[in-house]
Formats: sequence, structure tokens, C-alpha cells
Amino acid sequence: MSRPGVAILGSTGSIGTQTLEVIAHLGERFHVVALAAGSNLQLLTQQVVKFDPKIVVARAADGVIGGKAVLPTPEGLIRAATHPDVDIVVVATSGHDSIRATWAAIEAGKIVAIANKETIVCAGDLIVPLAAKHNVELRPIDSEHSAIWQCLMTANRTDLARLILTASGGPFLRTSRADMANVSVANALAHPNWSMGAKITIDSATMMNKGLEIIEAHHLFDVPYEQIEVVVHREQIIHSMVEWVDGATIAQLSFPDMRLPIQYALTYPDRVPGPCASLDFQRMSQMSFEELDLDQFPAVGLARRAGIDGKTYPTVLSAADEVAVEAFLNGRIRFVDIPAVVESALAAHAPVEITDLDVIADVDAWARAFARTLIA
Amino acid sequence: MSRPGVAILGSTGSIGTQTLEVIAHLGERFHVVALAAGSNLQLLTQQVVKFDPKIVVARAADGVIGGKAVLPTPEGLIRAATHPDVDIVVVATSGHDSIRATWAAIEAGKIVAIANKETIVCAGDLIVPLAAKHNVELRPIDSEHSAIWQCLMTANRTDLARLILTASGGPFLRTSRADMANVSVANALAHPNWSMGAKITIDSATMMNKGLEIIEAHHLFDVPYEQIEVVVHREQIIHSMVEWVDGATIAQLSFPDMRLPIQYALTYPDRVPGPCASLDFQRMSQMSFEELDLDQFPAVGLARRAGIDGKTYPTVLSAADEVAVEAFLNGRIRFVDIPAVVESALAAHAPVEITDLDVIADVDAWARAFARTLIA
Repeated sequence: MSRPGVAILGSTGSIGTQTLEVIAHLGERFHVVALAAGSNLQLLTQQVVKFDPKIVVARAADGVIGGKAVLPTPEGLIRAATHPDVDIVVVATSGHDSIRATWAAIEAGKIVAIANKETIVCAGDLIVPLAAKHNVELRPIDSEHSAIWQCLMTANRTDLARLILTASGGPFLRTSRADMANVSVANALAHPNWSMGAKITIDSATMMNKGLEIIEAHHLFDVPYEQIEVVVHREQIIHSMVEWVDGATIAQLSFPDMRLPIQYALTYPDRVPGPCASLDFQRMSQMSFEELDLDQFPAVGLARRAGIDGKTYPTVLSAADEVAVEAFLNGRIRFVDIPAVVESALAAHAPVEITDLDVIADVDAWARAFARTLIA
Repeated sequence: MSRPGVAILGSTGSIGTQTLEVIAHLGERFHVVALAAGSNLQLLTQQVVKFDPKIVVARAADGVIGGKAVLPTPEGLIRAATHPDVDIVVVATSGHDSIRATWAAIEAGKIVAIANKETIVCAGDLIVPLAAKHNVELRPIDSEHSAIWQCLMTANRTDLARLILTASGGPFLRTSRADMANVSVANALAHPNWSMGAKITIDSATMMNKGLEIIEAHHLFDVPYEQIEVVVHREQIIHSMVEWVDGATIAQLSFPDMRLPIQYALTYPDRVPGPCASLDFQRMSQMSFEELDLDQFPAVGLARRAGIDGKTYPTVLSAADEVAVEAFLNGRIRFVDIPAVVESALAAHAPVEITDLDVIADVDAWARAFARTLIA
């Protein structure tokens, strides 16, 4: 692969734009073959002009962008993910938009760099074995999973004691249970460290994000749930850790900058100088670690339970959460109602074995409809 | 290698006794083939009775220990290091006693687990290429080098930005320059974290230890001096770090317990449950990092300079330091005179290319004699 071709599904989102920043920074190392966006056609147009992809995809397609014919979703996503010039597919869409395109990319033997949580959370039982069957690398882009991926290189998987996912704790780590009920949208959107999309920022505030990451870690690294722990690490310098059976812990540290795991997913197994600054010790001296309060953040326990129960429970968790977060952002439910909606949906769900992606789509639709009945 | 055989050179010292603790803890995993000690025949006798080695070596040999004929040093060390039943040689002697035995072990194709600093510091230019030629693994036992060895597994060596050796700072990190002159032997022997031999404890107090580790890291990992840094990390939870060119840092963490790097050097590439406790987050929350004050600890700069100048300078550094530390322990010079003696010896030295071990022995003898003239 000299100068690998990259397809970016979700190019106008937070991860998508940062992926393009990294690619631009790395100069001639990669070339952009396909850009797929949702409805932000203005930004997509700028990206098309700058990166000159062969394939342009948009949910709100309007014929031509930057001189290129625009393909509509969802077919366009699959075209982008499987184009012969593409070596690496960056899955940076939100929700379920790209699950089928990811599937197609794997079947086409592409490297899949994945930032999308739902694909692994809901379809991990299918996608991970599919990738293994096609000998395709699933490279995590999440800072936590990227850290674990790196740390796991220091021994045999059989000698693992536990994965330790670090969590910022979000803006409400010190908020009283009583005050949680009165959290405003503006407060919830103010994440202390990372700049991210609204859905992920709210998931970070409820810590549902961390719950979803537990499920992802289980699938991506084939680690039982009882060996996956969460520790609150406010400063987000250590992005996660791996503890081995001998008592040694390996940690990956850096400035909180999503461009680092993005770049690593592109350049692996190489590492190259990129836009991310190296860590200074001053910053490392402010690190703290504390136990997670599961009563304060019930979403984490719900997610872990859904993961352990398996089948379509994680799909319900994810779908109900998405509906609940949207309702919160629209001012229709309170912050504390988000996990309550998810819990009710999980309780009402009759789980199904995941035999194919249609099962997931059906359960997703059911969970969304059910969650909406709770919001009224 | 089912149930590898282990030879321990320096079995009654701090590393030697801890190596036997680890082996005892691991039950049937290893068997002790050879034990070599200096003059602590009482402890050696206990060890022989407990571990039933085929070969027993002592500097102060007195015929029979625990029913075994005792071989004298230095020939006995070579016999121990090359015995056909030996798979791993743990080099835990101090000073130059085991350099020739280490050489012989490498030529015999044994795995060498090395805790002895002088072997690498003085003879690294010969020993490391010799090990490469014989395809022999040199496994570091030092907590710092063990940490680096582990962290280096997370990328290609060509993508290294720097090694970051952590240093406890010893008991005098906060001592004023004026008070350094009046440091007592008892104060200098009181290391905040580790239990070690007297020589290494004093080297830790002057931080000569860290200087020697810079030279070792250069040889063991083939890293230029300008890419090896030291940071003071009082709590010794992070045992060292590797920073890659992309800005990611990988760190190895554990309780300060020498049995962990010892065990890892024995079981590599496997990791097994051993006597070392896993880390708790409470302890991690107390971590601090600060720049090293090279004026406060001139030994570090002297060692780095000796390493960069190469040839026999590191031998002079090491030998003069040993004489100076002994003189300090005997109350003949002040604490601050230790680096001064080393500096004078380095300044007086006419360096020689290291063509064989005799060159090192000759320079070592010269440096000791010269250092003694300074002590009077």
C-alpha cells in the first residue's frame, strides 16, 4: 500500500473533520478517495474542493458538489466503503447509518478504522467475527480503545488481568443527586476536556458513553465483562490501561486530542510525527483517579448489564439512549430521565438472537418507538 | 524449555534473594541449577538446602555447603553460567565480578537476565553485540529498564521520540546545596521506596544510579543519548516511559517491588500471577513529576557525559564511583565528595578503545587506584 486511499464516512462530523486535519497534516502519506456526509453540504463542499475525492456521498444529495456527482445514502456509503482505490474506511458517522457500509467494507477486505460506537455495541456479535473471517483489521479510533489496543501489545492476551477504561466523569462528577434533576442542556454540553458532537457530549455527561465503551471493549478485544473496569480520571491524560496477571499495568498517555488515535488508526503499525503535541510532566502531575459512583451514573450499570445479557439488549440500550438524549436536548425530558428511559426500554424488551443485521434494525426501530412512548 | 533451569550469580544479595523468592512463589515453573554468592555463607547454606542446586559457588569457598562441593570464584561463576541444565542466567552480582561469566553465558546461548549495571555500563560496547551475534536475549531486571523494554513493544523502534527514565530523587531531593555537604551515612541509606544494597542505595541518593541507567538504556535499547531523559517521579509508580513520534506515551506502572521485573525477566514473554500486588488507584492519585535539578545531582550529568564520550569513560565513572561510595560509607569522604571524586577521575583519564574485556579490567584498576589517591 503506497499512499493508501481513505474513505471517510461522516466527514463533516467531529471525527470526520479531525480525520481530514490529520490527513492534510500528513501531506502525501494518504489520499482521500471518498467523502460521505449527512446534511452539512456547505462543509462537505469545502472538503470536496480541498481533498478532491473520487466519490462524494450526502444524505441530502443535490446533484453536484464541487464538480462531482453526489451519490445518495445509504447506497452511496457502500460505494464509498468498497471503492477499489480505498484501503482504509474511517467510520465516523453516528448511529446506525454505516453498519451496512462497514459490513460491505469488511467483505471487500478494507481496513476499518472505527469511531462509531453503535456498530460494535449493537452488531459486535456479527461484525467482529466477520472481520476475523475476512482477516480484516478493526482499528479503534476512540481514545480509550486506541489506548487499550496499544497497551495490549505488551503481552499475550491470555495473561490479561483486566482492562481499565478511564473516564473523565463529565461535568457532573461533583453534582449532587438532587441537582442532577435540574441539569440544563447548556451545562450538559460543557465537557471539561474534549470537543465533540452533542450526542456524544451528553453521553459523556450521563457516562452512557463509558457504558457503551465497556461493551465495545468486550467485543473489540474479546475480554469478558468481569475483566473490564472503569476508573474516573478527570484529567484524561491516561486514556486507558491494561493490567496483566503479574501485577504490571501498562498505560497510554497523551494530551487529550482525538487526532492522535485517529492518526494512529491510519498509520498503524507505524507512528509518525503529526499534529499532536507531546505530553509535559507538569500536566502529568495533576492526575487523579477515583472510583466510579454507579448510583450517580446509572447508565454505566445499565450498559454493563445490557452487555452481559447480550443478544439485542445492547441495541435497545443504544437506541433508547439516542431517543432520550434527543428528547433531553429538545427540552422534553430532564437529564436524569435519560437513563430512566433506557432502563424502561431494556425492561420491556424481549431479547432476540442476532442472526443478521435485519434483526438489529427491527429491534432498533422497536426500541426507538417504545422510548418515544415514554417521552410523550 | 519445560521447567527452565536458572543460575543465580549473586544469590545472597538483594536481587538474588528476591529472585529466589519469586522462583519459590512460582512453584514448579523453574528449577535452580546454580547458586553463586560472595561471602555470606550462612545465607548461601540456607539457600542450598532449600533449592538444592547442582552447582554452588562462593568467593569465600570452604569445601562443602549443604552437602555440595563449593566451587571458587571466578571459575565457579563461569561453570554456573554455562552448565548444560541452565537456561537462564540471572546476573545479580555487584561490580565487575560477573562480566566474564556473563560473556561465557552468552557464548553458551543462555538467556541472560541482567541486574548488574557495570556489565552493560562498562562492557556494553562488547556484550550487546555479542548477545546479538549469538541471538541471545538480554533481559533487563532493573525496574526502569524492564518498564522500557515492555513499553517498547508498542511500536517500531524507528518511531521512538524518547525514553523517559523515572527517578525517585532519593532522600535528598529537597535538601539544600549547603546541607548536602553534611549528609550522614544513615540519612543516605534511607531510601524512600526500595529496599536495596548499600552501594545502590548511595548511588540512588547521589542519583549516580540514574546516570548509570542512562548509559544502560543507551546500550540495551540502542537509543542515542539525546533521546534519553530523566524525570523525577517521587512515588515510583510509573517505572519509566516511552514516547513515540506521534505524541503518544506508553508507561509501565506497578507497586515498587523488584520482584515484578525479576519475575518478568524469568517468565517473558509470558506473564504469570506472582507475589506482586496489583496497583490501586488511591496510590496512583499521588503521582508527581518534576524536572531533575542537574546542579543538585551532578552525578547524572557526569554519567551522561561519560556515556556520550564513550570508550572507557563509563568504566572510569563506575569504578571511581564504587571507590568513592565505599569511602563515604566508611566515613572517609563527604557525600558531596562522591561526584567530585568521579569527576576528577574522568578528567584525569586518557580514554582507550574497548577491544576486549582486559581493556576494561585495566582501566577499572587504574580508575580505582586513581580514585584512592584522591581520598587519602
